[in-house]
Amino acid sequence: MSILRKDPVSSGWVIMAEDRAIRPHDTKSPEVVRSDSANCPFCEGKEGVTPPEIVAYRGAGSPPNGPKWRVRTIPNKFAALRIEGDLERRGEGMYDAMNGIGAHEVIIETPNHMGRMGEYPVESLAEILRMYRDRVRDLYQDERFRYIQVFRNYGSIAGASLSHPHSQLIAIPITPRWVKEELICSKEHWQTKERCIFCDILRQEESDAERVVFKNDRFVSFAPYASKFPFETWILPRRHNSEFRNIEDSELRPLAEALGGTLWALQQALDDPPFNYIIHSAPRISMDRYAKSALSIDKDYHWHIEIIPRTTRMAGFEWGTGFYINPTMPEAAAEYLRTALKDRA
Amino acid sequence: MSILRKDPVSSGWVIMAEDRAIRPHDTKSPEVVRSDSANCPFCEGKEGVTPPEIVAYRGAGSPPNGPKWRVRTIPNKFAALRIEGDLERRGEGMYDAMNGIGAHEVIIETPNHMGRMGEYPVESLAEILRMYRDRVRDLYQDERFRYIQVFRNYGSIAGASLSHPHSQLIAIPITPRWVKEELICSKEHWQTKERCIFCDILRQEESDAERVVFKNDRFVSFAPYASKFPFETWILPRRHNSEFRNIEDSELRPLAEALGGTLWALQQALDDPPFNYIIHSAPRISMDRYAKSALSIDKDYHWHIEIIPRTTRMAGFEWGTGFYINPTMPEAAAEYLRTALKDRA
Repeated sequence: MSILRKDPVSSGWVIMAEDRAIRPHDTKSPEVVRSDSANCPFCEGKEGVTPPEIVAYRGAGSPPNGPKWRVRTIPNKFAALRIEGDLERRGEGMYDAMNGIGAHEVIIETPNHMGRMGEYPVESLAEILRMYRDRVRDLYQDERFRYIQVFRNYGSIAGASLSHPHSQLIAIPITPRWVKEELICSKEHWQTKERCIFCDILRQEESDAERVVFKNDRFVSFAPYASKFPFETWILPRRHNSEFRNIEDSELRPLAEALGGTLWALQQALDDPPFNYIIHSAPRISMDRYAKSALSIDKDYHWHIEIIPRTTRMAGFEWGTGFYINPTMPEAAAEYLRTALKDRA
Repeated sequence: MSILRKDPVSSGWVIMAEDRAIRPHDTKSPEVVRSDSANCPFCEGKEGVTPPEIVAYRGAGSPPNGPKWRVRTIPNKFAALRIEGDLERRGEGMYDAMNGIGAHEVIIETPNHMGRMGEYPVESLAEILRMYRDRVRDLYQDERFRYIQVFRNYGSIAGASLSHPHSQLIAIPITPRWVKEELICSKEHWQTKERCIFCDILRQEESDAERVVFKNDRFVSFAPYASKFPFETWILPRRHNSEFRNIEDSELRPLAEALGGTLWALQQALDDPPFNYIIHSAPRISMDRYAKSALSIDKDYHWHIEIIPRTTRMAGFEWGTGFYINPTMPEAAAEYLRTALKDRA
């Protein structure tokens, strides 16, 4: 008998097809093919091939757009959105359009072409997270941007077109619909209970323990109760905080430990699977709307990271309904990941 | 400069990255590998290998579960949901769960193992559509089911695990979130304008003409204004009607023409791409809730088919936001598809 579980944060339901539970060795991860570094524009020494850097953390005295960097952020050469111009919101008959204003940046995570995120030294990963935060803080000053999405694609199945390790960031002039959906659910929870839904989830997960993958004194990583995909894992900060850009320096290293540990466990358990991760954070809401709508977004919402290994395919049913079928119970996934982490220690 | 367009039916936005417009010959469709028929459980003569048929359209006098069928519906052997039992809605701490009650059926479209839907004779396709309708009508009698999703996966990228031509149907005890999203948008439109949003879209598309792919006197197929994917195509009935199960006999052949023509054009333009299609229809709403909420679902909503060629990949940005990047303008896609259809005539 399969079970239906509801994700309290999106109010979407998932079919947990327990009968055909898939264990890691039954899950055939699509192979992540890594190109060699010969023609890689992101490698050290190729800085002239990319657009000029926006910011880089580099060795003392090394000039911009040359070698000796550790983390390097550049504009996306094939940007989906441009930073210059006006939105020019307009109607086209019954439809709505505006100009593609935004920012699209690439964060090159390391000069090491063959690096794997789960194997980075914790200091390096903490520096990448600091780069995310600093870029978000900088772009947040541009009031046209309602939402800044930081994300990571690993493997071509997961949408990565270059294999040199890199993350991306897209700033958009609109609050995306799935972000709104989470805001609505968390607001409803607050209105009923005067508690943050994510803080409640943290308490429940720690108390149940069976879905927890990794924890330290600042972060908890766990397989969510209504995981949409096999081995989906979320990382939540223990400190209630609606926006990722408010992360403190002292939290970067604990987050690097949680993210690195979780990715390492996924790499072991699923044989280096393609994956995406996405930082979910509260959008900018104009103070006018904030006052009118009685939104208490700072209290309601709680930033977090969602990691999605890409071992299954979206088919018509999922596309049609937003209703997912997951053949792996999150309790089983978490146990495999915890076991993998034991081998690491 | 790219353009942002809003889908009026989901209120999601799409980035149309016009600068890098992809023409069909730039679009490399992932190859659809067709297995040979030797071990195929859906071929004629293998009826004993599948679960017993629920219904089949077959030659006069031919007995069930033997050869000489034209279209054959069976329970899915690896069903995600079971039809027997009670829902047993329950809480698990702060979370919600229920039993996986539902139906999961497979509609084998033809005995021809190598058949391609865009090449079926129009009579065969009309008969497949009749089977969809009759199965939905039958399952609708079970009041536990809130939504019945009919869908087609073509190619392993699109989630098909067997290559013999087949569609599927899943009946679920819940209204899925993306269906709710469409219902909310169409209700809002009705409340403002007292018109069906889909009827408005039909009028606008016929008047603009540039996104229309195929039309006859009952159906119009077009590339939607805010297409999320390259060559996405929708088929709308001209007759306002909220539920697919209400389709009349006289509409089956015109729908088969529209669906077959559109799939044929996609096959030509994109070199036999993997695809999904999904029938969107109004869910069952209990009369109590209907009265209370002032929902006028029969007036608001308008069933339709969405076809999604699977030539691009979902990456982290799309997963995080529900905000899509589409490198092909729908006006360009529609023109290519219309041109392909001219060759057919």
